[in-house]
Amino acid sequence: MTVTGHMLIGQSAVWGSHGRLHAVAAASGERLQPAFGGAGAAELERACALAEAAFDEYRQRPLVQRAAFVLGIAENILQLGDELIERCHLETGLPRARLEGERGRTVGQLRLFAEVLGEGGFLGVRIDPAQPQRLPMPRVDLRLRQIGLGPVAVFGASNFPLAFSVAGGDTASALAAGCPVIVKAHSAHPGTSELVGRAIARAARQHGMPEGVFSLLFDSGRSIGQGLVADPRIKAVGFTGSRSGGMALMQIAAARAEPIPVYAEMSAINPVLLLPHALEERAEPIASAFVASLTLGAGQFCTNPGLILGVDGPALQRFERAAAEALGHVAAQTMLTPGIYRSYCQGAAILAAHARVQTLAQGPEGQGQQARGALFATSAAAFMVCPELREEVFGPASLIVRCADMTVLQQVLQSLEGQLTIAVHLSEGDQPQVQALLPLLERKAGRVLANGFGTGVEVTHAMVHGGPFPATSDSRSTSVGSRAIQRFLRPVAYQDLPEALLPAELHRANPLQVPQLLDGRFPG
Amino acid sequence: MTVTGHMLIGQSAVWGSHGRLHAVAAASGERLQPAFGGAGAAELERACALAEAAFDEYRQRPLVQRAAFVLGIAENILQLGDELIERCHLETGLPRARLEGERGRTVGQLRLFAEVLGEGGFLGVRIDPAQPQRLPMPRVDLRLRQIGLGPVAVFGASNFPLAFSVAGGDTASALAAGCPVIVKAHSAHPGTSELVGRAIARAARQHGMPEGVFSLLFDSGRSIGQGLVADPRIKAVGFTGSRSGGMALMQIAAARAEPIPVYAEMSAINPVLLLPHALEERAEPIASAFVASLTLGAGQFCTNPGLILGVDGPALQRFERAAAEALGHVAAQTMLTPGIYRSYCQGAAILAAHARVQTLAQGPEGQGQQARGALFATSAAAFMVCPELREEVFGPASLIVRCADMTVLQQVLQSLEGQLTIAVHLSEGDQPQVQALLPLLERKAGRVLANGFGTGVEVTHAMVHGGPFPATSDSRSTSVGSRAIQRFLRPVAYQDLPEALLPAELHRANPLQVPQLLDGRFPG
Repeated sequence: MTVTGHMLIGQSAVWGSHGRLHAVAAASGERLQPAFGGAGAAELERACALAEAAFDEYRQRPLVQRAAFVLGIAENILQLGDELIERCHLETGLPRARLEGERGRTVGQLRLFAEVLGEGGFLGVRIDPAQPQRLPMPRVDLRLRQIGLGPVAVFGASNFPLAFSVAGGDTASALAAGCPVIVKAHSAHPGTSELVGRAIARAARQHGMPEGVFSLLFDSGRSIGQGLVADPRIKAVGFTGSRSGGMALMQIAAARAEPIPVYAEMSAINPVLLLPHALEERAEPIASAFVASLTLGAGQFCTNPGLILGVDGPALQRFERAAAEALGHVAAQTMLTPGIYRSYCQGAAILAAHARVQTLAQGPEGQGQQARGALFATSAAAFMVCPELREEVFGPASLIVRCADMTVLQQVLQSLEGQLTIAVHLSEGDQPQVQALLPLLERKAGRVLANGFGTGVEVTHAMVHGGPFPATSDSRSTSVGSRAIQRFLRPVAYQDLPEALLPAELHRANPLQVPQLLDGRFPG
Repeated sequence: MTVTGHMLIGQSAVWGSHGRLHAVAAASGERLQPAFGGAGAAELERACALAEAAFDEYRQRPLVQRAAFVLGIAENILQLGDELIERCHLETGLPRARLEGERGRTVGQLRLFAEVLGEGGFLGVRIDPAQPQRLPMPRVDLRLRQIGLGPVAVFGASNFPLAFSVAGGDTASALAAGCPVIVKAHSAHPGTSELVGRAIARAARQHGMPEGVFSLLFDSGRSIGQGLVADPRIKAVGFTGSRSGGMALMQIAAARAEPIPVYAEMSAINPVLLLPHALEERAEPIASAFVASLTLGAGQFCTNPGLILGVDGPALQRFERAAAEALGHVAAQTMLTPGIYRSYCQGAAILAAHARVQTLAQGPEGQGQQARGALFATSAAAFMVCPELREEVFGPASLIVRCADMTVLQQVLQSLEGQLTIAVHLSEGDQPQVQALLPLLERKAGRVLANGFGTGVEVTHAMVHGGPFPATSDSRSTSVGSRAIQRFLRPVAYQDLPEALLPAELHRANPLQVPQLLDGRFPG
């Protein structure tokens, strides 16, 4: 399969006539062929019309068919073979091993949602049978299930060109929820996007899905992405990217005649708390694991540990020395795009030049758009009054905040915005202090983790990849794990409908064997 | 207990110094004593500070304590006895029997949430145990539960002075979710609000809850309500009222530095579909039940049937005649407020004067602010081009749209905005047509019901009182029934935390016996 530069409007490969995009080889900066045609208003209109037309048909397909389609996408992605990895490596600069792992994760996500479809709990079925004898009034028969919200717009992320992009978590969960998807491809990996998009379209064809269940648009500017969110046929948005980008989409969605939910994952610095006993006992191994997490994938993870909080003293100094030492040995790594590289350099330079910030270490210099790691330190007093020290620096830079004691550490934590993760390094002797901090940690983050780092997000049932604003726009949800399907569903109640008219999951005999909450309890 | 005109800031009865409000006797238009002091910025600040201070303590109380508190509120409301009914009747003009029923509903809601707290499924517990042997990487231990969003602002509704007001569904579900509540009392029933507010505050005291778990503010204008939604300590909003009111709050919430969810129930005309066989067989009994639903409580229900769709012909004419005849016998009823009465008269007058609308019947004239029922008819052609015919007329008025055939009826339905309910009257011979319509009905409404009317909303597990915009601001939720608690929760994941630090509901031994999803399945 060769990259052609065509979008996918349903089953049609379409050359967009509204400007052109080119991918850029991350390692060399060289412009890659072919060109990609950007979507214009006509293509946007056609994709939305197809998605709208497909919605009712798609969502009413039996769950086993929806599951087979989702599994088919996984299969087709694997069948792209090495070409996908090659193209993706070229476009993103991410190492092949990482991309192979990410492909496994992407395929695993799709398979997880096929399982979720098989199990059926996501439907949230509830049945309250009629009570004709109830006094003073008989009780009606009520049955509830969840259905898809409608067509979903998905914005591919730059930093996970497979797992958070065209067939990533947002697409997988929306399709599983019964929602057609229109993806706005990320301009940094259009070739990867085209390949994966064709794998999805092929699965739709193979499994006889309605044409509009999936479209893929290239955008030579911002108007197509914005137009997608504004289109009345779009009923929800999934986005992973910058805070400014997410906020812009939130504003468009809120200003619509019919406002819609936006699930934007935007910004986090993912504090790491070093508790005194843990630091005393394990300063060096923690520092080593920290540097590994900080520099993983050139630090280009939403869960990158950008802030370290510890009580000042000899143990923290040991940590700082060990981390600085380790960072000096990590080679610079190619970043995803020239823009991300520039932003990283600017962010790191602001910290390096800051009067109240000390530069503890920098990694070896690199070439081209290779980022070197950077470790800084400041005082809690400075951190509390300098808002520029709390900005996310996307890449392998982190800031240690030296706190006079645990009370100050708690004040610093209290002053932070919402986060995806907070990691706590603790030993048994630290447990009482962590217990006291826990309510604050829960309020500040979607995931609280012990003796580890937030990078490496398990795709399971109990994962929360989300968190209070501005980590995400909607803390009530997760974008990773099986619970992500809930973002694209809404409940509908059916009162006194003849069973013959009801979908099978609401039948009392429960032919699909889905979990049914009966009068508020799961039977058995 | 005597109404004093004082707000409740936590446990303190406070006389507000920012303007005054008076209740008005609905029947006579007479100003009632005492005056109520309106909240100023200082009272708002104090209520928010208390709520914020109470949040962590309140949400960490054992669920049995939270349940006892909620039950205590129900008990204390009952103990207010006849004084509550009397005052409420005076302020709202609603008949005593209705108010006694509504009190039962209010108390029943609180008891339902106590049960929900006992059962524990609302916590959404999920456990994915560690897999230390997994290759290539061990799997971490992940546990998820839901916690409260934070302090919630609740706006009392005019039309349910008990069940959707100070201790109504929003307050009950937010308190059950572990969120402190600040109620902005509706200005139409301040005395009722004070009495119920004191019942809540007393329960908080009796059950040793932190002071800020509940406050009640009077607002002599709009600034306190708006300030409440804008306050950074408020994390969610519950509102039932007008579309303009709900939209204003949505805009304030979206413009905050940290946007928050608003659950606004705003506007619906609740279409009723009369299928041909049903109409042929039962035109008269359906008409009679329709008029009863239309005029119930002076038509002041969110689920009032404001729009009838039927295929034009002799059977629809029979329905129209029977409904017109029945409406002529329903006495005018006192509306809640002078403002609501004026709006109703204006809305009905616009329909009556409309060139393309026929007035089929009006009920007998009333006195003071008593509304007479009104029934209008128009053609589908007119309805499709005249947006003024789709406005909700809050009160006992309804519009019949005569459709040439089922295709036209479907087009009319398709053109409607989101609704709380759609009712379908069908006989066995209509089932194929309803089957074909069902996908559209699901997309347009939160509740689809057969052979009944939307008024009379059961408070159960499978109820959805919600629906697509503008019926509500957030179709992913319900404001009635046990599922309403989900509006005020967010998930938090705990990774590798020592079990000693985890809340009891996440312990593997499951001491609280809450439903725990283990690796994606409920065991047993």
